[in-house]
Amino acid sequence: MLEKRNPIPVSRAVSLVMEAAGTGTVETVSILASHGRVLAKDIIADHDIPLFDRSPYDGFAIRSIDTADARSGNGVTLEVIGEIGAGTVFPIKAGPFQTVRIMTGAPIPDGCDAVIMLELTKEITKDSQTFIEIKRSLKAGENISFQGEDTKKGTILAQKGAYINAGITALLATFGSRDVPVVSKPVIGVLATGSELVEVEEPLEPGKIRNSNAYMIIAQIERAGGRGVYLGKLNDDKEKCLEAVQNALSDVDHLITTGGVSVGDYDYLPEIYKEMGAEVLFNKVAMRPGSVTTVARMGKKLLFGLSGNPSACYVGFELFVRPIVRSTLLSERPHLRKVKGVLGEDFTKANPFTRFVRGKIEIDDNGTLVASPTGFNKSSAVSSLADTDVFLVLPGGTRGYQKGMLVDILLLDDQQGSEWPWGNIVPSYK
Amino acid sequence: MLEKRNPIPVSRAVSLVMEAAGTGTVETVSILASHGRVLAKDIIADHDIPLFDRSPYDGFAIRSIDTADARSGNGVTLEVIGEIGAGTVFPIKAGPFQTVRIMTGAPIPDGCDAVIMLELTKEITKDSQTFIEIKRSLKAGENISFQGEDTKKGTILAQKGAYINAGITALLATFGSRDVPVVSKPVIGVLATGSELVEVEEPLEPGKIRNSNAYMIIAQIERAGGRGVYLGKLNDDKEKCLEAVQNALSDVDHLITTGGVSVGDYDYLPEIYKEMGAEVLFNKVAMRPGSVTTVARMGKKLLFGLSGNPSACYVGFELFVRPIVRSTLLSERPHLRKVKGVLGEDFTKANPFTRFVRGKIEIDDNGTLVASPTGFNKSSAVSSLADTDVFLVLPGGTRGYQKGMLVDILLLDDQQGSEWPWGNIVPSYK
Repeated sequence: MLEKRNPIPVSRAVSLVMEAAGTGTVETVSILASHGRVLAKDIIADHDIPLFDRSPYDGFAIRSIDTADARSGNGVTLEVIGEIGAGTVFPIKAGPFQTVRIMTGAPIPDGCDAVIMLELTKEITKDSQTFIEIKRSLKAGENISFQGEDTKKGTILAQKGAYINAGITALLATFGSRDVPVVSKPVIGVLATGSELVEVEEPLEPGKIRNSNAYMIIAQIERAGGRGVYLGKLNDDKEKCLEAVQNALSDVDHLITTGGVSVGDYDYLPEIYKEMGAEVLFNKVAMRPGSVTTVARMGKKLLFGLSGNPSACYVGFELFVRPIVRSTLLSERPHLRKVKGVLGEDFTKANPFTRFVRGKIEIDDNGTLVASPTGFNKSSAVSSLADTDVFLVLPGGTRGYQKGMLVDILLLDDQQGSEWPWGNIVPSYK
Repeated sequence: MLEKRNPIPVSRAVSLVMEAAGTGTVETVSILASHGRVLAKDIIADHDIPLFDRSPYDGFAIRSIDTADARSGNGVTLEVIGEIGAGTVFPIKAGPFQTVRIMTGAPIPDGCDAVIMLELTKEITKDSQTFIEIKRSLKAGENISFQGEDTKKGTILAQKGAYINAGITALLATFGSRDVPVVSKPVIGVLATGSELVEVEEPLEPGKIRNSNAYMIIAQIERAGGRGVYLGKLNDDKEKCLEAVQNALSDVDHLITTGGVSVGDYDYLPEIYKEMGAEVLFNKVAMRPGSVTTVARMGKKLLFGLSGNPSACYVGFELFVRPIVRSTLLSERPHLRKVKGVLGEDFTKANPFTRFVRGKIEIDDNGTLVASPTGFNKSSAVSSLADTDVFLVLPGGTRGYQKGMLVDILLLDDQQGSEWPWGNIVPSYK
């Protein structure tokens, strides 16, 4: 009845999962719908920015040589031969002591090599001809935004796999991408198992709890960049579970189940994997919470058997499912971003397994990250998840941890990620 | 021709804008569509969590008194009188030296007051009756998740105005919210102005640039939590601009224009505001970039006249428009979250105006935030916006700033926000 399971280190478990990582397909969306998606192609500058020498100010385009002797008390007078708004090209070459009124963004007229701000000039009208007086000298190139000074043609400005934020949207528009190639979101199915579950709209009965994990996971899938599909909940009935899992798998890229992975008599998922002929990658991980996480593989599809405990389920998703979603989205940093931070509270009780403690970061007056646990800290706690924005990583061992110690922190609300955060976590089993 | 403008401090400008802040209306969405939206009502626990005393493990529910003398070498034998899976209630009260096989999450049977993990028991069958042997004593309450130990009925678990993340989704499901009351997204219109602009799908011509600001702003509106509506681009023609602005305003909650707010001859927006009878709140702010930002008000609607320079436009949005979006979404911390961080580079050139330098944060090995500018740092630079995740706030004055100094940092990719980040920025004009 009692199966003996051999826990493997987190790094090994993640590694086994990542062997099944694939890359997503490409689809095209309008630039207006591209925010929050992921670039499927690099953005390469197909022209210089600026495209031409232009004025950064409203003012006058001048020939710097004409202002060589100008200074306070000895103004130089220039003839205004026209004006140029942004979007047009001035047709005449400016000659000695001639100037052109120029607007922000307009191309520098032929013959001119500097711009003086409007505020520094004085307009004079003489015989219905307009002149300006300038009381300072300008250097050649002064107040000119030169062609290519922001970006040279051919520069890679954003790489495929990048999250499309407002700045990248600006780049897409600048280089004419009305239709943006993005990576299709991987489709992850979610099945909840457990006879104790009632649906969100159903009344509670004695002994029952509402199915919250499935909805939570769907939000986690969306945060990671995937598309979550809720496939319903199942009672603890092995045959029905098997059928549901097999049906589900044909419609999705990967499948998550919650519950049914422990060692209880009703935890059928390990048997279901066996009957399906799925390869079980692991069924126990040296971590808390989430040690009973099971992951199996059917060809290119993964079956994530996450715990029924909300917090264990939450951690299991972020460690094992998230990097699969992000890899599909072409990220080269698919794992949670790992940074250093200071522990905000004591954790005196030692644990042989690496702990992933739900926490929240604050930044103190010295600019230091301080991470504290979000309240009640049992793996069944739902309430603590609302404020959680990090995991504190406390490697297993014989000692506890004290407030003020520097620890590893995994950021949950982050687009940057990390390439491999597990390098220096010493496996806590022998 | 040349209008004299009086710059006001950022804090004063934001303050004036915020006087027009309103609160949004409520709509209902399915829990499956609620991720990323904002709660319109507090989540209050309408029952305890757990709802009943339950088992956190698979094992046996026992009467602790029966194990008082149990120890290694002196096991106690208990009669297994049945089993209970999660979701059911055991119908019989356990008597002396009786035990019930119990699954994770199942209610503790009547008569029992502790749970022993399956792994710590040994099964014995005698005369086709099952017994277990236990070789340790348990305390009353050991391994029981008590009713209400996570959350007591009546507790406020999340407040209206909260961003719906995965943890809050779990709470919504737990308390039966299939339909979630969320705040309607404020609708912000975006009009680009400038004869130099060509549309994203159009070829470039001499002197022209592509309209990138409008698309960038729409992504910024979405990040802030609003809905952006692109209303097209306009040439520098005052009458057409006036008509377009008036038409646009009737369809949206607030309107953003980019360009046309400088002091150039084609910068018509100030005149348009006057003709419409809008109250101009300010037309110059003591900040770089974005000093020519103009905001006007028509009743409850704001007209944000952002600069045509991409970076000035970007900053203007985050400082002035974002808090209006977030206030509408019931946030009590509508402004950018302000934290301390260390400057990653010298800024030796002094500036009389407060600078908002586009930057990126890294966290060093001591857990300290280090903020460095994202490349090329002119207000026209598009390329630097892709990597930008913070503004470095450098108050105006007569001195520059050195690498390693502690400065204020405003976080852009953040849901927490701050109540009022402008308290200790000393206005840099007299």
